[in-house]
Amino acid sequence: MTPSSRPNALYAQAGGVSAVINTSMAAVIETVRAHPDTFGTLYGARNGILGVLKENLVNLSAVSDWELQRLKQLPGGALQACRFDLDPIEENPAQYERVFQVLKAWNIRYFFYNGGNGSMLTAQKVADYCAQHGHELNVIGVAKTIDNDLALTHCSPGYGSTAKFFATSLLESALDLRAMYPTSTRVFLMEAMGRHTGWIALSAALVQDRLPELPLLILFPERVFDYAQTLKRIRHCIAEHGYCVVIVGEGIKTADGQFYAVARPNREHMGWSQMGGAAIKLADELRRDLDTKIHAAVPDYLQRSAAHLVSSVDWALAYDAGKASVEAAVRGEAGVLPIVVKTGEKPFTWRFESCSLEKIADLEKTVPDEFITDDGYGATEAGKAYVRELIQGEHPINWRDGLPDLYPLHLAALPKRLPDWQA
Amino acid sequence: MTPSSRPNALYAQAGGVSAVINTSMAAVIETVRAHPDTFGTLYGARNGILGVLKENLVNLSAVSDWELQRLKQLPGGALQACRFDLDPIEENPAQYERVFQVLKAWNIRYFFYNGGNGSMLTAQKVADYCAQHGHELNVIGVAKTIDNDLALTHCSPGYGSTAKFFATSLLESALDLRAMYPTSTRVFLMEAMGRHTGWIALSAALVQDRLPELPLLILFPERVFDYAQTLKRIRHCIAEHGYCVVIVGEGIKTADGQFYAVARPNREHMGWSQMGGAAIKLADELRRDLDTKIHAAVPDYLQRSAAHLVSSVDWALAYDAGKASVEAAVRGEAGVLPIVVKTGEKPFTWRFESCSLEKIADLEKTVPDEFITDDGYGATEAGKAYVRELIQGEHPINWRDGLPDLYPLHLAALPKRLPDWQA
Repeated sequence: MTPSSRPNALYAQAGGVSAVINTSMAAVIETVRAHPDTFGTLYGARNGILGVLKENLVNLSAVSDWELQRLKQLPGGALQACRFDLDPIEENPAQYERVFQVLKAWNIRYFFYNGGNGSMLTAQKVADYCAQHGHELNVIGVAKTIDNDLALTHCSPGYGSTAKFFATSLLESALDLRAMYPTSTRVFLMEAMGRHTGWIALSAALVQDRLPELPLLILFPERVFDYAQTLKRIRHCIAEHGYCVVIVGEGIKTADGQFYAVARPNREHMGWSQMGGAAIKLADELRRDLDTKIHAAVPDYLQRSAAHLVSSVDWALAYDAGKASVEAAVRGEAGVLPIVVKTGEKPFTWRFESCSLEKIADLEKTVPDEFITDDGYGATEAGKAYVRELIQGEHPINWRDGLPDLYPLHLAALPKRLPDWQA
Repeated sequence: MTPSSRPNALYAQAGGVSAVINTSMAAVIETVRAHPDTFGTLYGARNGILGVLKENLVNLSAVSDWELQRLKQLPGGALQACRFDLDPIEENPAQYERVFQVLKAWNIRYFFYNGGNGSMLTAQKVADYCAQHGHELNVIGVAKTIDNDLALTHCSPGYGSTAKFFATSLLESALDLRAMYPTSTRVFLMEAMGRHTGWIALSAALVQDRLPELPLLILFPERVFDYAQTLKRIRHCIAEHGYCVVIVGEGIKTADGQFYAVARPNREHMGWSQMGGAAIKLADELRRDLDTKIHAAVPDYLQRSAAHLVSSVDWALAYDAGKASVEAAVRGEAGVLPIVVKTGEKPFTWRFESCSLEKIADLEKTVPDEFITDDGYGATEAGKAYVRELIQGEHPINWRDGLPDLYPLHLAALPKRLPDWQA
């Protein structure tokens, strides 16, 4: 085929971002570039599928080598992500028709979607619609999620770096607490992201690699949160060790199945419930019941954007995730997500294997029982070994004038070929 | 003098700790070691002056070179700090007598105290008491405070590393927010330590070195916090840029002079007020008034213990602070604190100069007007230049198996020479 006749490809980002999602993006760009016989131009859509609807496209084939190197360190989503999905097709067929028109206008036949389960499945429905209308579209997912709750895969790119940040920060904070507790703070709480799963909370247990005696309680969303029982455990830690570290999974639920934190309406302003804030709420409750100073940390976005603390293993997984997606497309696959299969340990090795998007949909991987101690408050050796593999190595970044040399890529918007989209 | 006849020295830590206070400790140990003609044994007291009262002493002269290297990376207080001070001498002379007895029993004539203003002044009162009872004690302070509120000195060791952590984390989080705001979070709040001063909050402005367009509002404790006015500014940022970053100094006060966060009593449990939590309270209020998703980060201890993000300049300042204290003692000075005097820029250079403890007492250095923009919500170029100098360079630490190789020194307790202290 001549260059102009080769089909084009599209890359976009959706859902929560991470410190390494742009590494996957760089891998997609480089791997598409390595297969000039298969692909024409690689476009990027801003804000995921929303950018397709709005025809907000950029030319990723024009990204320079220097920009690629910067992408490989840049946290957040360089193309901007989205918390937006298409409506069900039966409710809003016009959306699908519009996406189809945009893809056709740009001769896009490959769609690499770096998003959550839901986004990727929607993309597959777009592909089905396109096929029915005579435009073949191969959708291939690019795995990512700091929450690590993607099913079937050994792990998700983005998780290892978050775990490394979380365990490192907790280790440092625990050393601080250790210096203060005899006359000051005795309880330190730290909130872990993960609305339904405790994978990030699990990483806290690695601190025991350095501080084996650390009195540490992990509140997993996988276990029912019982305030009275937890209070008893904290009192016991204080009596025994003088202090206590409590990791609070943001998604912990009480026995009635309600979120602990979201369950609490804001009494001042009816109608609003507190977002997240499980650690802050627990700190408030503990202050009522314990006559001691309590500190609570909520790392929030810090834990998923820490480019300066990316794990080398996670970085390589993120790169391979992007590369594997493009290679699957080259092999003619469609409607798949390449997932991580562990192939060896010490050192941890892996390969990517395609899994059908339908198969992975709506499955959520929680922390398995064998990773949580019987009392429900700690991690087993197997759990720690699982996370430890994923935080190995310190991926370097560039520094300038005291700060990471990180700043957004300026990708020029391409002139539109279609009339504006009317939602 | 023969070794056994030389007077001994004591080192202790008080107040909040930092990522580099143990670097000052290592400097004290090494500099004492370099002056064998002046000093006998260097002891350490656990938990500051409390360790003297309790005669909880360790032998710092016995610390190995390998342990010294570890100390230079270790966050928190290796000797454990204290939030405890002696009573006024007229109320509790027995405490002073006890400290005097312990110092005499161990022939301690030099006391290097790595603490806040208050602690160092108390130590000087101990020295006065000792002198009256025929035991000469030279008290020399070792400067530190992440809050940077120590008067007269150009800056305080510990601050630069906290500023580096804060600005780096904010930069990374802002890149995350930038990817999400079009369809998700539009306001990101981050709480800065500093009960009465906005030095850490000030460091947030360095983010503009990478993201000059970032819509950033800094709420300084040095300015009256006006919720309505702030809300208006946030709305303006969202209208103009689509999103907004707000740095919340934990010590912001409303027009009535009350702390914004502590002013809010916990309605459920009377008698307790919420500790810190200014960013969380503001996020709650904003959720009432803005129809958008809001995230709030509270780094808490993470910002003062981040050994993996220590600035080279701050590390060197912390080392020099310890060294300067011992050298002042060698010169025969007493009742002084060596403070930082800036001697040049590009690169920033400094020397330490002794200042009398009395002179520095009870003075608090707030962020000066010329560092805050006229509207009260930002940093001037002068303010940014001040902080930028202090975050330069990345002091390396050792990593092992994916985590910083940080763990406490095990310093054996020395057998007591006196009966137990009865408080």
